[in-house]
Amino acid sequence: MRRLDAEALRDLARGAAIFGAGGGGDPYLGELAALRALEEHGPPVLAEAAELPDDALVVMAIMVGAPVPLVEKLAFGNELVSAYRAVAELLDRPPAAVMSPEIGGINSILPIALGAQLGLPVIDADAMGRAYPEIHQVTLTLFGVSASPFALADEHGNTLVLRGVTNEWVERLARAAVMEFGAICPGVGYAVSVARLREAAILGSVSRAQAVGRAMRVARGGKASVIDAVLQITGGLRLFTGKVVDLDRQTRRGWSMGRALIEGAGEHRGTLMTIDFQNENLIASVGDEVVAMAPDLITVVEQDEGTAITSENLRYGLRVGVIAMPCDQRWRTPAGIALGGPRHFGYDLDYAPVERLAAQRRPLPARHD
Amino acid sequence: MRRLDAEALRDLARGAAIFGAGGGGDPYLGELAALRALEEHGPPVLAEAAELPDDALVVMAIMVGAPVPLVEKLAFGNELVSAYRAVAELLDRPPAAVMSPEIGGINSILPIALGAQLGLPVIDADAMGRAYPEIHQVTLTLFGVSASPFALADEHGNTLVLRGVTNEWVERLARAAVMEFGAICPGVGYAVSVARLREAAILGSVSRAQAVGRAMRVARGGKASVIDAVLQITGGLRLFTGKVVDLDRQTRRGWSMGRALIEGAGEHRGTLMTIDFQNENLIASVGDEVVAMAPDLITVVEQDEGTAITSENLRYGLRVGVIAMPCDQRWRTPAGIALGGPRHFGYDLDYAPVERLAAQRRPLPARHD
Repeated sequence: MRRLDAEALRDLARGAAIFGAGGGGDPYLGELAALRALEEHGPPVLAEAAELPDDALVVMAIMVGAPVPLVEKLAFGNELVSAYRAVAELLDRPPAAVMSPEIGGINSILPIALGAQLGLPVIDADAMGRAYPEIHQVTLTLFGVSASPFALADEHGNTLVLRGVTNEWVERLARAAVMEFGAICPGVGYAVSVARLREAAILGSVSRAQAVGRAMRVARGGKASVIDAVLQITGGLRLFTGKVVDLDRQTRRGWSMGRALIEGAGEHRGTLMTIDFQNENLIASVGDEVVAMAPDLITVVEQDEGTAITSENLRYGLRVGVIAMPCDQRWRTPAGIALGGPRHFGYDLDYAPVERLAAQRRPLPARHD
Repeated sequence: MRRLDAEALRDLARGAAIFGAGGGGDPYLGELAALRALEEHGPPVLAEAAELPDDALVVMAIMVGAPVPLVEKLAFGNELVSAYRAVAELLDRPPAAVMSPEIGGINSILPIALGAQLGLPVIDADAMGRAYPEIHQVTLTLFGVSASPFALADEHGNTLVLRGVTNEWVERLARAAVMEFGAICPGVGYAVSVARLREAAILGSVSRAQAVGRAMRVARGGKASVIDAVLQITGGLRLFTGKVVDLDRQTRRGWSMGRALIEGAGEHRGTLMTIDFQNENLIASVGDEVVAMAPDLITVVEQDEGTAITSENLRYGLRVGVIAMPCDQRWRTPAGIALGGPRHFGYDLDYAPVERLAAQRRPLPARHD
């Protein structure tokens, strides 16, 4: 176990946003939330799964809903604890730790704030290795871990506890409720033993995000490219460089959904990248060629500083790099692809790993005039 | 306490539908459900509130949602018991009885079926003295009784427990969830002590509904007018007689909403009645004169048999009588009118009791040709 100081929290928020793949909430708000938690409750404790007994219970905390109104509604207050208590009172033993089901700007920090408030450690792991728009899109679902009981709470003091026969039902019911809770609210669920976490979760992902954030900080201080530093640690690849020239985005059914067009610059001049997103970036294409798709991670970063830009923060004129990172191997199984791949989101596309797509890409043919 | 046999249950379903004021579910389905409960679990027990100790806990069971799909989804099975158990496990003592929050075709029977299944008596009372479309529209709300914890359950095995800071919040959240539960599902909540019921509930209303149903049966067997028999017991008045000539009805936000036009016959020939409904009939007008409005009860009955016709069973060409009955006095307080009167439903109308409106009505002026 180790304590996270202000620098660690800032690094974590910065790095986690890279893994957010366009979702997971604004990393700047994540940083603010982390620092507030630190101030109010002292340094939070990060624990490896191996440091807890097999039968220790862990619960997950996450923001459910569209990230858009989050700025006005930075809800790390009582509603998060209300949702936690609504679940905890239904379990046969008190939770020993909390955890984030996803890596992403705010959602990596939320459980840390909760853990600090409750005096519980946060597990150095997540259940996606990225961010995803739906509650049931976690590796835990692939391993048969139930999301129920799953609680939502709002700032008025309302709580709601769901017991779904499947995790997909929890998602459907929570989605309907979250609309009445002002489009976004904290959710707590997925009570699971540490023993099951060891096989079903992405272990060490909080430390990895922190390492990425640290490398970004170091690169900014020196002369190295921040994007290169990220790619080096994550094993990712640069898909595109350019400028956002068109943006079609709306909040629908509790998600920020839409498409961004990026006009190529430098070696990509003369080509156009399209990114489809549903909170998270799902499909990246250059022209009519798909170059990356979920479950692999597609992240848009600000060109110079390398800061991850969430889909709700995309703006016309922004100069960006687009990077892709291979997802966790559990997402590349048939069940993983079915739950997190292109067909899940309604695209008539067979999943192909981003490395293979990159290897198949040929340089643009010489132009015949 | 007394046991209800098949005839008692049929009388109750028939009579309760009259108090349903267009809502509360199809009385025929109510009768079927009652007989099924009787067959499966033996005669249910009806208890007066005075027969239980002051601190005995009572919970309410009701169908939440639009009555339209109820025919395909007659959900008096496991989901009702699931919703009950989800609430019961959160209470500090086990419920001693169940009760219907409303009088209406199916909703008067639902708690009887539940009570029979659980071996618990049903209280001879309700919390509206009529039916209303929203969960918080009960006299209990006027007396500060909380609807929470309030559980919903579906036929798949999903359950959902709401704790709203107000009963209106319970309604909002349940309404959102019920959409995902196929537009209608059973709900259980309003755990309350018998002592509080004695001031806040409409006592004896199940017996009253049974008496109305019995009088209807007797009138049908003899030569008396069924409608007159109903009016005699309920203190109601006949508003109109005619034929349904137009119907605008849709399912919106979990309700059956719309307007019916009835062309006058007999003494009402040459005039047109309009009835606005949201599950329940809300406003009845003749020409541009409002003749009855909620919280008073407006019920459409089949002309000869006197059977109550719910708003979802209204059909073009049906020959009907329209009757009105004064509501319980608690609905005529300022708080009662605010919760159950015309402005609650968006009508820019001051409430006036149906008896006063009737006294103010003048016969149609002689026609000048």
